[in-house]
Amino acid sequence: MKAAKLAVEVVNVGNELLDGRTLNTNLQWLCERLSRLGYLVERATIVRDDVAAISVCIREVLKRRPGWLLISGGLGPTHDDKTLEGVARALGVGLRLNRKAVEMLRLRYEEMKRTGLIASVELTKERLKMAKLPVGSKPLANRVGTAPGVLVELRSTRIVCLPGVPRELQDIFENHIAPLMLSESGGRSYVTESLTLKGVFESSLAPILVETMKRYPGLYLKSNPKGIEDGISLVTIDFIAEKKDAEKIREAMSFLQDRIRGFHST
Amino acid sequence: MKAAKLAVEVVNVGNELLDGRTLNTNLQWLCERLSRLGYLVERATIVRDDVAAISVCIREVLKRRPGWLLISGGLGPTHDDKTLEGVARALGVGLRLNRKAVEMLRLRYEEMKRTGLIASVELTKERLKMAKLPVGSKPLANRVGTAPGVLVELRSTRIVCLPGVPRELQDIFENHIAPLMLSESGGRSYVTESLTLKGVFESSLAPILVETMKRYPGLYLKSNPKGIEDGISLVTIDFIAEKKDAEKIREAMSFLQDRIRGFHST
Repeated sequence: MKAAKLAVEVVNVGNELLDGRTLNTNLQWLCERLSRLGYLVERATIVRDDVAAISVCIREVLKRRPGWLLISGGLGPTHDDKTLEGVARALGVGLRLNRKAVEMLRLRYEEMKRTGLIASVELTKERLKMAKLPVGSKPLANRVGTAPGVLVELRSTRIVCLPGVPRELQDIFENHIAPLMLSESGGRSYVTESLTLKGVFESSLAPILVETMKRYPGLYLKSNPKGIEDGISLVTIDFIAEKKDAEKIREAMSFLQDRIRGFHST
Repeated sequence: MKAAKLAVEVVNVGNELLDGRTLNTNLQWLCERLSRLGYLVERATIVRDDVAAISVCIREVLKRRPGWLLISGGLGPTHDDKTLEGVARALGVGLRLNRKAVEMLRLRYEEMKRTGLIASVELTKERLKMAKLPVGSKPLANRVGTAPGVLVELRSTRIVCLPGVPRELQDIFENHIAPLMLSESGGRSYVTESLTLKGVFESSLAPILVETMKRYPGLYLKSNPKGIEDGISLVTIDFIAEKKDAEKIREAMSFLQDRIRGFHST
């Protein structure tokens, strides 16, 4: 099942994620979308706003040769937005003012002035920072905020940099990346259905899960213990299958429930 | 500021975190606690339920020699709970039934039978799996669930394995790890206060942040763009200082607000 999926890695950049100030909802959102597009997220790494930390991490990811590397955060205009510098260093290229990216910024600031959001459209040093891209990369228009996304196509891996603001990340992903990924994955996608069991412990479930997977090849079962609530143990079981095997899930669910009833009556 | 803190890395194990089924609240909880205890989380990595992936990741972490490595998830009794196997492989040691861990399981199951949670206290193969620890490690009692936590003390790094169920992770951390960490950090800790600004853009803020940090050495300022809501841009600025410098934060906040007012009136 693993080999069937196209490998992706995610890197989230931001001190706020490692200081406990911000819950990393971007990772869950990306993983959920990538899963549904037929991709397998092999690993996610969260690093601090530090050029060396970012570039070392990216080099490590590239050695593992995932088809895609999605990076979030650190694209803004402030001193601690260091993602593009990190990407450039990892690739051994410089940062250069990208004309298309400057044009995108100009259009966004003009629009924001028209709607009264800002007073001046001047492209200050700080604003222009967002248009300094690693040489060889391509800006992706941001229709929600200002910082453009960035796409770098290497031989083995496509690197995508997305802003950390969730709405902006989601808009650029849906607008520019999802269509590319969907055509690449050939529409292969996965289905997950969940079953919550009360009063059953994982330790009793373990052999039944293995038995069910043997009986239904192509299905993957994963149990998630939810702890004990009001004196009753809760376990959720996810049944995962390729879309073409989706109808096997219902069968496997009733098989497993029968086996559990058998277990309890012994 | 970075060098003053004690370095920690976190590894979260679990397919559910990389498929978008589960939001990684354990990471935020751990980071928040570690921060308050005076530690700096340098990096967090999320890997799948796969022995090779887990062991490779742990070896990479150990090369960076953080003082602590906290691992969450994958301690349960089912086929996909592979953390201890991964740790053992990374350390080049075997897994062995640990007498103290068996005793902990026995006590927990007896308690659970007394309260009517389970029918049998039998230590089945699946239950005993949770007491097979990497040689040289020490079990940490779990007062909430069943799987004990695990502590391995290496020369440069202490490795702690915690269950993925949040209540169990939190209980073992507070009961066994926080006291050790607090005595090690000598009670050094950090204070963060936040200021939310409306109608100000990060690109205008950037030079003011740098100016404020220059004026108040020991303070670190981080801006977090929250995007645009109802046509008004929102930015939150975190002011971070060691506890002993906490009173500088208020001063720096008013300095920064004055500078912004000055900026807008020009």
